[in-house]
Amino acid sequence: MAAPPIRTTAKAPGAKLQGMSTAFIGLGAMGYPMAGHLARAFDTLVWNRTPARAQAHAAEFGSAAHELSSLAHADVIFSCLPTSGEVWEVLRALDGQLEPGSVWVDCTSGHPQAAREQAAWLAERGVHFLDAPVSGGTNGAEAGTLTVMVGGDAAVLERVRPRLAFAGKVVHVGPTGAGFAVKAVNNALLAVNLWAAGEGLAALKAGGVDLGAALDVINASSGRSNASENLIGQRVLSREFPATFALGLLAKDVGIALDVVAAHKGAAPLLGSAGGLYRAAERVIGGSEDHTAALKLVEQMNDVELS
Amino acid sequence: MAAPPIRTTAKAPGAKLQGMSTAFIGLGAMGYPMAGHLARAFDTLVWNRTPARAQAHAAEFGSAAHELSSLAHADVIFSCLPTSGEVWEVLRALDGQLEPGSVWVDCTSGHPQAAREQAAWLAERGVHFLDAPVSGGTNGAEAGTLTVMVGGDAAVLERVRPRLAFAGKVVHVGPTGAGFAVKAVNNALLAVNLWAAGEGLAALKAGGVDLGAALDVINASSGRSNASENLIGQRVLSREFPATFALGLLAKDVGIALDVVAAHKGAAPLLGSAGGLYRAAERVIGGSEDHTAALKLVEQMNDVELS
Amino acid sequence: MAAPPIRTTAKAPGAKLQGMSTAFIGLGAMGYPMAGHLARAFDTLVWNRTPARAQAHAAEFGSAAHELSSLAHADVIFSCLPTSGEVWEVLRALDGQLEPGSVWVDCTSGHPQAAREQAAWLAERGVHFLDAPVSGGTNGAEAGTLTVMVGGDAAVLERVRPRLAFAGKVVHVGPTGAGFAVKAVNNALLAVNLWAAGEGLAALKAGGVDLGAALDVINASSGRSNASENLIGQRVLSREFPATFALGLLAKDVGIALDVVAAHKGAAPLLGSAGGLYRAAERVIGGSEDHTAALKLVEQMNDVELS
Amino acid sequence: MAAPPIRTTAKAPGAKLQGMSTAFIGLGAMGYPMAGHLARAFDTLVWNRTPARAQAHAAEFGSAAHELSSLAHADVIFSCLPTSGEVWEVLRALDGQLEPGSVWVDCTSGHPQAAREQAAWLAERGVHFLDAPVSGGTNGAEAGTLTVMVGGDAAVLERVRPRLAFAGKVVHVGPTGAGFAVKAVNNALLAVNLWAAGEGLAALKAGGVDLGAALDVINASSGRSNASENLIGQRVLSREFPATFALGLLAKDVGIALDVVAAHKGAAPLLGSAGGLYRAAERVIGGSEDHTAALKLVEQMNDVELS
Repeated sequence: MAAPPIRTTAKAPGAKLQGMSTAFIGLGAMGYPMAGHLARAFDTLVWNRTPARAQAHAAEFGSAAHELSSLAHADVIFSCLPTSGEVWEVLRALDGQLEPGSVWVDCTSGHPQAAREQAAWLAERGVHFLDAPVSGGTNGAEAGTLTVMVGGDAAVLERVRPRLAFAGKVVHVGPTGAGFAVKAVNNALLAVNLWAAGEGLAALKAGGVDLGAALDVINASSGRSNASENLIGQRVLSREFPATFALGLLAKDVGIALDVVAAHKGAAPLLGSAGGLYRAAERVIGGSEDHTAALKLVEQMNDVELS
Repeated sequence: MAAPPIRTTAKAPGAKLQGMSTAFIGLGAMGYPMAGHLARAFDTLVWNRTPARAQAHAAEFGSAAHELSSLAHADVIFSCLPTSGEVWEVLRALDGQLEPGSVWVDCTSGHPQAAREQAAWLAERGVHFLDAPVSGGTNGAEAGTLTVMVGGDAAVLERVRPRLAFAGKVVHVGPTGAGFAVKAVNNALLAVNLWAAGEGLAALKAGGVDLGAALDVINASSGRSNASENLIGQRVLSREFPATFALGLLAKDVGIALDVVAAHKGAAPLLGSAGGLYRAAERVIGGSEDHTAALKLVEQMNDVELS
Repeated sequence: MAAPPIRTTAKAPGAKLQGMSTAFIGLGAMGYPMAGHLARAFDTLVWNRTPARAQAHAAEFGSAAHELSSLAHADVIFSCLPTSGEVWEVLRALDGQLEPGSVWVDCTSGHPQAAREQAAWLAERGVHFLDAPVSGGTNGAEAGTLTVMVGGDAAVLERVRPRLAFAGKVVHVGPTGAGFAVKAVNNALLAVNLWAAGEGLAALKAGGVDLGAALDVINASSGRSNASENLIGQRVLSREFPATFALGLLAKDVGIALDVVAAHKGAAPLLGSAGGLYRAAERVIGGSEDHTAALKLVEQMNDVELS
Repeated sequence: MAAPPIRTTAKAPGAKLQGMSTAFIGLGAMGYPMAGHLARAFDTLVWNRTPARAQAHAAEFGSAAHELSSLAHADVIFSCLPTSGEVWEVLRALDGQLEPGSVWVDCTSGHPQAAREQAAWLAERGVHFLDAPVSGGTNGAEAGTLTVMVGGDAAVLERVRPRLAFAGKVVHVGPTGAGFAVKAVNNALLAVNLWAAGEGLAALKAGGVDLGAALDVINASSGRSNASENLIGQRVLSREFPATFALGLLAKDVGIALDVVAAHKGAAPLLGSAGGLYRAAERVIGGSEDHTAALKLVEQMNDVELS
């Protein structure tokens, strides 16, 4: 199939290229700055469930806030939504309007099975699909240095690669769904590493050890992790728990990782245990708290404060 | 008590300072290079269960290989042995010979409870005790950049600090036993982070994901850890599993961490589960294999090869 | 809808009631004796993937072995297959042939989500669906004393209740899928109770305790379970491991239970851990071994024999 | 050594046999009725930390309430205390007063390591030691039908067997400490079976299943356990949680079981996980609540009520 080429040239100052544009659906904590990088480089249409946020985006970055249906004609459509369920809602709302040959790039931390079903649904409509979740947090989104892990057709990735203006690193990890699978596993490791650090520090605290000193040592030693280096001190010991990535979303991601395990009858007792503990933290502490607030449940379980 | 000052001046070329020396007991994979740094800076007596290794050390670093009892008269005695059990054996062998006012610095990855008992036993003999386990592996020992986490009297640490020639970083973490506790927790986190990465990668492999690409992404993302950055690729995916730190010793350390948890009735379900899995790996894979070979059990459990 | 009444009168000696019959699909270790009880009481058509087994059933119990399509006209159709996947295969093979007003009773240890989808699929064809898994093992199937846990419309259950000739106890547990959910949870508890007993006995064995005496005590104490009373001594300590219920099927059931947990974002760290361990046992020991052979993995993990 | 024979004849009505008596230390929920059975059959001296309870016992059962030191001269001394720590306190209080040739029978749910140390301490004083924990709860204690699991010298057990007036079943399970080990493992199985049932029922409740019906089915099926048959319905679904066996003591027992596992480097990931969960329940719900109140934490973790 000779698909129309994806435009890769930079946005001309003042220009408005008819019929060739980038669309971005979902201007949440991640999507808002990601779409900002797109808008700086390309003509970019944006949509958000709450229109005011789209209008603010247009004012800040020069994107164009439109009705959802207007975004259907873009040649590359990005989505960045809470779960694959919301992606299905948007897809169905746009049914009959999507352009054959266009590419849908879903940056949601979605479900691999949903990716396969959505890719098939879009393929019936002549649209390509890439699952392209990102890592790097709101800081990375603002800096435009996100890591993008992409599942799907490598040739399609090459076509849209120049549009990934928010990326610092782009890695093709496998077939459709592989991007979501890697993202889910990455987040499950974050969850395990964080929780285990909480359990260990709680025991040290109960034994009279200075947690700042202990964390200093661990971060210079073999037990260190991104969680110990960038989260425990800054968010937990500080008692700040800034809500940048919701506990409920991390619990969801661990659940997706467990589905990836189960899909091939895998054996992951440690992840299985962690999955239960994060669901418990979501219930007891609250799903909209920052993900590091999971350690508040560890604190309750041990009757110590990690400070 | 006016204890005799600990000598801190550097070794004079060709000099032999009578009655003032450093002793090092246990020239294993870690102790051998650690004692080498001491011998380059100070008059250093060494002892090893296998005398040939002590003689090789003397030839390589200019230390002096002696009978164990000769080391009793040093003003600072280091020990670096497999477990606190071997430290007790050495202590008892030297009973009656130790010098009041001297300092015993135990760099073993020992047990906090043993530290408290050994400190009390030595205190009855006028000898100070510091639990001072190290982190950094054989590379750090050779480079002299080990992190030392010290439990015990801070003033005693200040007296011996100049002798810690193998250290890149020295942190006082709390009272006697705190050094061992922090070390055990650090290693338990290493164990958990490593195992969880193995479970996650096994699931990805079963799903057709390229593990090199997945690891590349994870190491640029929130799920990264020392295990993912420095062990999985280099030792597991490479299929090399170089035996620098024995699986049996890591399983022991997780056990010590669980004892630290239990000492204060702590709640650590994830560490508790990991403790069982590492003992299983020790049995099934072999305790003298490299600690990263624990993932061979994860491979068996999932019927995939992490490569 | 005035559905034709389900016949509940007993089979008349020598009679052949036209158009009113019972069908049974799947003559495995459980289905074979279950269908035998039906055939003794009612005109019963049977089908099995391997026809010879159906013919043997006909010879032994007086059932009638037929092509699958011939069973479509029965007013009550039972299925008892390895998983819901095989049930879908049979349903699709019979599409267009099923009789409106008839009742499909699935005794498979199936998946609640499959039950809901299959019930909807059958409802579109005018056929009622009950998920009706059984408990009691091959002994209970042969004795006709199985416990049946039924999900679906209570009124439909009342219509078919007289046909449940293999049952000792029938309990309506909730809406469609509830039967499978309860069965999965029951089997997950079996799995946990069995594995935990294995871990505990392995520790006692390593400590020199006589396992027969220990089991005797446990079975008279608060730690007893069906696993300790009816499986450990008879199958494990005896080293017999008779293959009556496959390890792979139990691992599947624990997986279904974890899906039930996940469907409502439940927190079940212990079941999550057990799920991983049973998948490991399935891989390492073999899925077609008896479920009690899971403890052979516990033995390997502990380097003891439970005898 | 020709030890004086242990008297086994029944108490003569009105008689007071000089120098031959039974002593019972610790009149808690279990000890009170146990000592009652002794007092009905033998001259029995009793002691309790709170003297009023000992006087009540004397009034109810005809035992003799005395100072602790008076009990030292009995030829069989029973203890039934919260932990081995309290047993050490009593032993030390009686040092120098115990009679050579007498037998100390510790019915505490104690620690195997403590048993070995206490047996050695008593042996130096010529006193025999049996670890003889009981199972059967307060009902069994009142009925005199307790199961006693005994570690130690089988010949010593034979000497005191006639005195075990509170027992329905007496089993010699191995050397000193084996009784405590079996008891700890039994209680760990109780803990696991109970918790797993809670997790499973919470998932069913969230899915709309009637828990009474589900429990009815499970108790007729392979997932049943003492916990499901005698605790869940009576104490949890009823919302009564009568405090007959404290959650903190069960958490302690799981901890002892994990020490038994660790003593031989055993691999018990499921018990390890359960140990952490019970310590968490002890902290969050309260150690003096009934052990079945652990499921209140499962309820919080799942945001459902098990009713």
